[in-house]
Formats: sequence, structure tokens, C-alpha cells
Amino acid sequence: MAEQKQRISGDKLRAFIAGAFEAVAVPREDARAIAHLMAQADINGSEGHGVFRLPQYIRRIKGGAVNVRPSIRVEREMAGMALVHGDNGMGHLVMKFAAEKAIEKAKTAGVAWVGARWSNHAGPASLYATMPLAHDMIGLYMAVGSANHLPPWGGLDMLLSTNPIAVAVPAGDEPAIVLDMATTVAAYGKVKTKAQRGEMMPEGWMMDRQGQPLIDPKRASEGFLLPIGGYKGYGLAMIIGLLAGNLNGAAMGKDVVDFNNDDTTETNTGHAIIAISIEAFQDLKAFKQGMDTLIRDIRNSRRLPGVDRIRLPGEGTHTARADREKNGIPMPEALLAALDQLAAELKIGKLAR
Amino acid sequence: MAEQKQRISGDKLRAFIAGAFEAVAVPREDARAIAHLMAQADINGSEGHGVFRLPQYIRRIKGGAVNVRPSIRVEREMAGMALVHGDNGMGHLVMKFAAEKAIEKAKTAGVAWVGARWSNHAGPASLYATMPLAHDMIGLYMAVGSANHLPPWGGLDMLLSTNPIAVAVPAGDEPAIVLDMATTVAAYGKVKTKAQRGEMMPEGWMMDRQGQPLIDPKRASEGFLLPIGGYKGYGLAMIIGLLAGNLNGAAMGKDVVDFNNDDTTETNTGHAIIAISIEAFQDLKAFKQGMDTLIRDIRNSRRLPGVDRIRLPGEGTHTARADREKNGIPMPEALLAALDQLAAELKIGKLAR
Repeated sequence: MAEQKQRISGDKLRAFIAGAFEAVAVPREDARAIAHLMAQADINGSEGHGVFRLPQYIRRIKGGAVNVRPSIRVEREMAGMALVHGDNGMGHLVMKFAAEKAIEKAKTAGVAWVGARWSNHAGPASLYATMPLAHDMIGLYMAVGSANHLPPWGGLDMLLSTNPIAVAVPAGDEPAIVLDMATTVAAYGKVKTKAQRGEMMPEGWMMDRQGQPLIDPKRASEGFLLPIGGYKGYGLAMIIGLLAGNLNGAAMGKDVVDFNNDDTTETNTGHAIIAISIEAFQDLKAFKQGMDTLIRDIRNSRRLPGVDRIRLPGEGTHTARADREKNGIPMPEALLAALDQLAAELKIGKLAR
Repeated sequence: MAEQKQRISGDKLRAFIAGAFEAVAVPREDARAIAHLMAQADINGSEGHGVFRLPQYIRRIKGGAVNVRPSIRVEREMAGMALVHGDNGMGHLVMKFAAEKAIEKAKTAGVAWVGARWSNHAGPASLYATMPLAHDMIGLYMAVGSANHLPPWGGLDMLLSTNPIAVAVPAGDEPAIVLDMATTVAAYGKVKTKAQRGEMMPEGWMMDRQGQPLIDPKRASEGFLLPIGGYKGYGLAMIIGLLAGNLNGAAMGKDVVDFNNDDTTETNTGHAIIAISIEAFQDLKAFKQGMDTLIRDIRNSRRLPGVDRIRLPGEGTHTARADREKNGIPMPEALLAALDQLAAELKIGKLAR
């Protein structure tokens, strides 16, 4: 039962987002950079992290939780690393700065790891992991999520976020491999979608406070998301949090602020981006040929009964991007209504249809 | 139903292992280095990757599959990376060399990523991820597994291994956090153990070629291990393979040799080790205090009904090590018998009880 959705072009979406940020005193250049990245999230099919987040971002700027004129800067630096201070700016600006720094450093160091602190929610992980691709580099991104939804394995207290990791690896003629995953079986957004549709969740997404399967998404607040592989996903969420949070002096554990329910508090969000120059390790052409061969071996391998196609990580994103760059981004009515309301509040023009 | 097991001291185990390698022409210093790491695997509770593997390693050396006098060397190097050529030496020697190189480089670069190729099976991932700890560094290790057990998601052809990742993060008064995980729900060794005990496996460990749950471990050859989080674990196994394999020009996909069933072919095993200097990012004391606080927050958090204790990644290893360093390593009769047989074949003294 596919909902009929209006299609909005990337240009119109970018213009609207940039206008909204300018209306709350974000400098024009920064507003445009954020708009570009947020619209790219929608174009890539990461709808839960694109313009859907705009009302929340604006609310937090108005509440004083985010600095609209940050001095984003390198605090510490060695040949293979840097630590970026985000000065509580929008996460998109901080991570764009950090990713560019990592790419620049990897050109001379081969590999560079750039951490960031005093940042904010930056949208989907794959936005930053894919930035090194244009430089024939592998990108690896990790972040501390902006709300704790995950207890330690066996526990009741939500001390961990669904800390995401994304890795992008270039190929030759084939599209790049892009993995972008949270460390829980389902993302919280998927639970919300099930609730909106009045559907039950499969067992394994959530459990309740007695450790029993929770399948009614309307009861989501009575339970927890489950980590992938049980204690393994718990360990992975913790490790990503240590690398993106603790290492950078950013918030982790009980210090994480739930940015969904708070418009005034700085989050000190931590991220890490690693850029890896392929040519530092081997011949670029040989690498790309090897990637193409591997991708084709996997795609053309034998399938389980009922499986129509073997997918590669990132394939859904490539398909969404090709469609949306040509035909525009499908936007649900409820989202368009929320953006119209935001436009009225900010006294800016509505998103052009 | 705990089996009665003899306890063997670390010293006796190391002496026996070193003697076995010397008997097949491995130079004394190298034999001792391998023996130290293999015994450490047993002491740490990674029994599936310790002396249990000795007969197989010796068989492969005798078969000409492994070079006993390798010239392990740096092939390529930049400030933040190196590529190590293992010259088909024992994986333990290659990865010890690579980890030491990563630590040395991280002292000046802050972070260093060292890849290795033309290596071999190196034992448990945590052996190498923990090496940077003594230098107040974080260690991160990845490898291409030495046999393919995992098809792509939805597929039938085992094109991927259960590629492991290990990460070790130092704390202050608390023991280090050490995550060491394969990207499948269960390791193949666990399936073998269930078969030996005549027990069924839980649903979710394996599936058969029709995509149905496979719970009888005696039918393991008719099915596949399942990745953690379904397609997420498949993606993670692939990415680890790309970073530890393809990037280094090591074997991946259909080029991976099953070293359990082959005593003559070079494997060109790939690994990666990353060393991260904590002091490059922040004050070491503050970091360690933060780690202790986080660990205690998690350990002391509220528990699900029936859960006796919240565990931290690596806790099982710390407990095993404390016990085994004092009381020796518990060894099953079947393993002792296999080692006695190996001793007879090599004309060396039996493992001293």
C-alpha cells in the first residue's frame, strides 16, 4: 500500500532548508552547506536523517542549544590524526570540516583519523563516510548517537545509543560499497513507522523490561531496542561510543543528552572520520579491478529459494539516488505540512512544490 | 556437566609448543615468539585458537604451505600507515611485527594503520588488539578469516569468512575493555562443540539451503552460519574483508583458501592493526578516569529479572587469565592425546603434565 507522495526537486529542497537556517541567523555560506548535506540525505534515501529533522534542528537553535556562529577549529594535530573542536556548531558543518581535514591529511600520511567533539547531530553516517570516495580513498565514520536507546546486555538502564558506523569503499565500474548501520536490529525510526501504520513488529526488534519479546510498537516506551547479535551488538555499540566519544572527550554513557526532548542543552556530540588512501597501500587500478570482480562474484552467486537478487551494501542508496536526482524526492503529506508550519513560524516562503 | 580437565602451566605449554616448531625447522627465536602468543590465547580463554591449532599448523608447515624462514618486511610506508609483507610466515610472527610497527608509528603520528598480506592464520584477534594497551594506546585489529563459512545475505555460495574484529581500550583501575567478535551469531567452533556433546543448537545460529533454521549440529555441512543482524552482519563481514584483505592485496572472496582442508597452498591471509595514542587526543589521566566511571556506571546499572551481573566486553578473558596464570590451563583429554600423538610424530618430548 504505497502512499502517494509529491516529488520535490533537490534544488527546491536545498533552497528551502538554507532559507530556514538563514532565518535563525546561520550565515549564508553555512546555511547552504548544511542544506546541501541534508538534502543529500533525502536524495540517498536516508529520509529519517534528512529534511525530516529540520523542525527539530531549528527548534534547538532557537532554544540556544546550538551555536549558529561556531569557530570550528583543529585543537590537536599530529601526522596521522587531528582533533576538531566543533564549538557547538551544527554537526553537518563540524563533520564536513573534519572529513575535509582527514582527506587532506591522508594525502601525505596515507591514513588519517580525525575525531570531533563539541559537535551535534550530523545526519546519516554515510554522508561523511562517502566524502573520501572522490579522492580514491576509503571512508570510515563513527558517531555517538544523539539519544540513548540501548541498555547494556542484560540491563535496564539505557546507557548506550544505537551508535552508527559507516564505511565506504570505492570500486571501478561498479558502484562503491557503502555500509551504514546502527548497532541495533532495527532503528528507532522503523519502530515509529510501524506504529504509524498500525502494524506489529517482528520478534527480535525490541524486548520489554521483563526480557520478553515486545511486538506492539505502541508499547515501545515500555521496552528497549535489541542489539544485533545480542551481547556482540552491545559490545560494538560500546566500542563505537568509546572511539567517537570518550577518545575525543565527547559525551558518552549517562552524559548523552536526548536531543529529541531537549531544546536548550549542548550535547557535546562526538564523531570520528578516517580517510584511507588506497594508493598508499597498492596500485589503484588493481584495487578497483579486484573490487569489481568481488562485487560481481557476490551479485552473481547462487541464491536461496525465493530470493530474487543478491544485494551489495549501498545498493539501495545508489538506486534511490539515481531515481531522486532525476525525478525528485518523494515527500509524505505529513512532512510537507510540518515544513509549511515551520515556514509560517519563520516567516519564510513555503517549500516550492 | 563439567568435564574433569588436567591443568597445564603456561611455562610447560610454551616449552612444548616451541619445541614442536623447532622440530619442523622454525628458528628458535621465532618458535618461542609463536609459542608465547599461542599459549597466551589459551590463557585468555580463546581455546579454539590456542594449542588446539598446533597439529594443524605443524601439518601445514610440513606440507610446504607455510614458510618457516620468512623475510617479514615493510613494503610501503607513509607517516600514518605501513604495509607489511609477511613472506608467507606464520601469522603470529607477521602480526607481532605489524603491531609493533603500528605502535612505533603511532608514537609520532598519533594514529597508525598497518596492513599485512602474505600472512597466515594468527590466532585470536584480541592477541594483537591488546598489544597497544601497554603503551596507553587503543588497539583495533581486523582479519580475513582462514575459511569461508558465510554466504552473502540471501545467497548459497560461501564467499565470505566470519571475518573477526577486535578492539581493546585501556581504562584506569578497571580492566581494559576488549571486544573480540566474529561477524556471525555463533563461531564454527561452537557448532563443533555442540556436535561433540550431542546437543541441538538454538535457532538463529545456522540455516539450511532452503533458508530454514538448522538446529542439528551434525547436519552443519548442509547449511550456513548466520551473520549477526542478518544483512548487517553480512555487510560488516564484507567491509572487514575489504579493509583487511582487498586494501592490502590479500585474499578475499573466492580466493580465500580453507586452511582446515589444505596443507600445501599459500593462503595470502590479510590483516590490519591500528594503534591510537590516547595522549594525541587528550589528557591520559582524564581519559582513564572517564573509562572507569563509564565501566562502573554500566556494571552497577539495573538488571533484567534473572540477570545476575552486567558484564563488560573482555570480562570473561580477564577472569580466565587470572585463574589460568595461577592454576594452569585446563586441557581436555582428547586434546592432550592429540598433542601426545604430535610429539611422537615429531620425536619430541610429550607435553609435561
